[in-house]
Amino acid sequence: MSRKLHLALHPYGVGGPGQHGLWKDPRVAHDASIDINYYIQQAQAAEHALFDALFIVDSQFINATYPAHYLNRLEPLTLLSAVATHTRHVGLVGTASSTYNSPFNLARRFASLDLISGGRAGWNVVTSFDTGTSRNYGLDEHADYTTRYGRALEFVEVARGLWDSYEDDAFPADVAANVFLDPTKLHELNHVGEHFKVAGPLNVSRSAQGQPVIFQAGVSEEGRDLAARVAEGIYAPGGTLESAQEYYADIKRRTASYGRNPDHIKIFIHGGPVVAPTDEAAQRREREIAAEDNDLDRHLALLGRSFGAYDFSQHDLDAPFPDVAALAEKGGRTAATKIIERARRDNLTLRQVAESAADFRQSPFVGSPTTVADRIETWFGAGTFDGINLAFRTTEELAYFVDSVVPILQQRGLFRTEYEADTLRGNLGLPIPVNRHTQARQYVDAVGA
Amino acid sequence: MSRKLHLALHPYGVGGPGQHGLWKDPRVAHDASIDINYYIQQAQAAEHALFDALFIVDSQFINATYPAHYLNRLEPLTLLSAVATHTRHVGLVGTASSTYNSPFNLARRFASLDLISGGRAGWNVVTSFDTGTSRNYGLDEHADYTTRYGRALEFVEVARGLWDSYEDDAFPADVAANVFLDPTKLHELNHVGEHFKVAGPLNVSRSAQGQPVIFQAGVSEEGRDLAARVAEGIYAPGGTLESAQEYYADIKRRTASYGRNPDHIKIFIHGGPVVAPTDEAAQRREREIAAEDNDLDRHLALLGRSFGAYDFSQHDLDAPFPDVAALAEKGGRTAATKIIERARRDNLTLRQVAESAADFRQSPFVGSPTTVADRIETWFGAGTFDGINLAFRTTEELAYFVDSVVPILQQRGLFRTEYEADTLRGNLGLPIPVNRHTQARQYVDAVGA
Ligand SMILES: Cc1cc2nc3c(=O)[nH]c(=O)nc-3n(C[C@H](O)[C@H](O)[C@H](O)COP(=O)(O)O)c2cc1C
Ligand SMILES: Cc1cc2nc3c(=O)[nH]c(=O)nc-3n(C[C@H](O)[C@H](O)[C@H](O)COP(=O)(O)O)c2cc1C
Repeated sequence: MSRKLHLALHPYGVGGPGQHGLWKDPRVAHDASIDINYYIQQAQAAEHALFDALFIVDSQFINATYPAHYLNRLEPLTLLSAVATHTRHVGLVGTASSTYNSPFNLARRFASLDLISGGRAGWNVVTSFDTGTSRNYGLDEHADYTTRYGRALEFVEVARGLWDSYEDDAFPADVAANVFLDPTKLHELNHVGEHFKVAGPLNVSRSAQGQPVIFQAGVSEEGRDLAARVAEGIYAPGGTLESAQEYYADIKRRTASYGRNPDHIKIFIHGGPVVAPTDEAAQRREREIAAEDNDLDRHLALLGRSFGAYDFSQHDLDAPFPDVAALAEKGGRTAATKIIERARRDNLTLRQVAESAADFRQSPFVGSPTTVADRIETWFGAGTFDGINLAFRTTEELAYFVDSVVPILQQRGLFRTEYEADTLRGNLGLPIPVNRHTQARQYVDAVGA
Repeated sequence: MSRKLHLALHPYGVGGPGQHGLWKDPRVAHDASIDINYYIQQAQAAEHALFDALFIVDSQFINATYPAHYLNRLEPLTLLSAVATHTRHVGLVGTASSTYNSPFNLARRFASLDLISGGRAGWNVVTSFDTGTSRNYGLDEHADYTTRYGRALEFVEVARGLWDSYEDDAFPADVAANVFLDPTKLHELNHVGEHFKVAGPLNVSRSAQGQPVIFQAGVSEEGRDLAARVAEGIYAPGGTLESAQEYYADIKRRTASYGRNPDHIKIFIHGGPVVAPTDEAAQRREREIAAEDNDLDRHLALLGRSFGAYDFSQHDLDAPFPDVAALAEKGGRTAATKIIERARRDNLTLRQVAESAADFRQSPFVGSPTTVADRIETWFGAGTFDGINLAFRTTEELAYFVDSVVPILQQRGLFRTEYEADTLRGNLGLPIPVNRHTQARQYVDAVGA
């Protein structure tokens, strides 16, 4: 098989989706989510296993009811920069909101990470789920979907323009001629758009991979459209085989419809594998994990998250799910709509809805090493993903996956046995974007004056 | 002498003030300003020499006429985060503009650096000198001094409020009781001010030093006032012994007038020592350096920087300095006013003004190791600084200073022979700020209900 599987690692720290009680596991340090050594070790383990990338999620709104791993964590770019110098191959993808950043500032930080890591940076563009984030940025209201995704698109375009400020041969640094910079190879952007006015140029040059890789996470119609237009990677939820196939086909089709090569967008689904020596042991472990994730207060808080940090604890737990549709228009419309529809269809109480909110955890990758490898091969062959964003409860479980499942994937020719490149683009099989100004120059050279 | 001298290192990369031709020195790598290994080595050398901190300057506006070291450089916080895990004691001070950042975003990044470094982060608050920065942030005009410094003050207050979101014992992480966070120890800020509305809380806890150390750089009346109100460190230009004394006394007096302990603001002056085995050799070297800094285009560009990136090359170089006073109100009023006054007083041409703009380089610390140590001791004793922000042209010159001057300072009891602490506050002799909410709680406990 020539199409290659990609694997990334989403380190949980003290918790993750459907893993809100993880901090209680005695093997998990209580400060894991703020311990840079934990992340360096995770990145080194990922690199040892030849994974494509370390993937850091993020959010910027909390209240005291939120699960442990949201409460206290490192900012993704400072985190990844510290990790960069302790690794050499693994990609470094950080989540940052296009709704609550300025393009010049964020483009510069990613450009800097891209240089520090030698061309391994990726930016997971999110528009921010938590509506309360607006109040940390001076705004009473979170912008609606159209505004947020419109801003995201323009933001990425501006960032890419800034990243091309310098052509790759802009710095002759010719001592005899007293020329450090060739001034014709530095370009202002002078962007004027609906959301941004940015003059440029950026004061950072391009890295070995040209520009950071753009990822995206967001499954609404607007999110899919953004991905198809500009993303080179996606963090997608996964779900069932059928829903993953639908999503995968839809994204590839949309990408092609924008005149882009659909191979140049790599879709990663979330996978929280549970692997054990036998299928039975893995299933038992999966049930234990599900049983452990039993903190109703945390479930209510997370449920509320999709409705603007709405306080569901004020409602009767055993009455029908309350009518909160009006609260769902902003942050988490896609998630909220699903919850409401299911509650209505199945006539669920608030308690039932809260308890079943752990959907995201349910992983197709539960079983013995062979079973999990089989399942990965089947799903991969069925057009459901290009890669998996793997998340493990503990370092031990990551190590077991690497030792037991990865070799099978390698034997089957699905996964690399050595890194193809030192850059994230190189390993993902993504082209290096030619600097737009060099491209223009090449065109003029070709046509002649 | 009980008052201790502090030393920081300002790495030049490919250039610095009055060192605009440095990139031509064969010992300087052309990519030093974007090479993280260069900064790691500088930080490790600073730590080996027991310096208090590495100090990273910054700017966010360039055009093709700017000197080499402005053109292409790493963003300070990603830079320092990468350096953090390769050092254990040295402080990490990064420059960031309060004019072109959001408090929640920047407070979070510094809090993250503070955790990653184990309590060694410092923030050099600047209001941005280059007026053109505004056009990278969607604004046609750079804000005036009152607005910029008003915003800076409020920004620092908000950041400090956010940094106190969690009391130090907020996370019992009690598995038996199923309590990760004690919710009474997480605090919203709910700041509403002239420039910012920020709800909080911040999703990052405090570090070993409580909060990042606030530095400030800016010498206007407004800048001095900001420093006296909130800064714990200053990067000051130095100048003559008399001007440094005046500045030092003024800052300490102002600080006391705000009810603060004047020992809790450490004034660092810029020092670019030129040390050689003999005084003569050092003076010869100093003349060579001055002669080398002869790129008139770069001098014109830097001169223009104080007047909103004004293009002085359009004027006759040998005519009297043009009337540009109207351009000096915004970014660099203090510097610009000095330039205009001197040009008028001494009847200078544009060329003369441009050529003498290298003032900042002229260092009082030129001579043999003993001469330089004497000079440092005299200035220190004369109340001109608490510390020196040392800048060296090359790694070799840094090494020579460390090997020849530092031991003399240590013998005289002026400089430490081992680190006092693992935190920046600890080494600077600054107190750890008690969390404001803990303080309030302690007060209530003391008075009783
Ligand atoms: C797999 C996945 C991972 C995500 N990770 C983040 C994240 O780390 N931070 C964040 O703010 N939003 C994250 N999001 C949320 C999206 O950014 C988006 O705001 C949210 O899903 C609402 O938009 P949508 O309806 O388009 O999905 C993620 C979404 C998905 C599907
Ligand atoms: C020693 C020194 C170092 C400075 N470093 C920076 C810097 O790295 N970045 C920056 O934007 N401004 C820097 N500044 C400029 C100040 O932030 C300030 O904007 C400028 O000096 C104009 O304000 P003022 O008139 O109060 O000095 C520095 C100023 C001094 C005196």
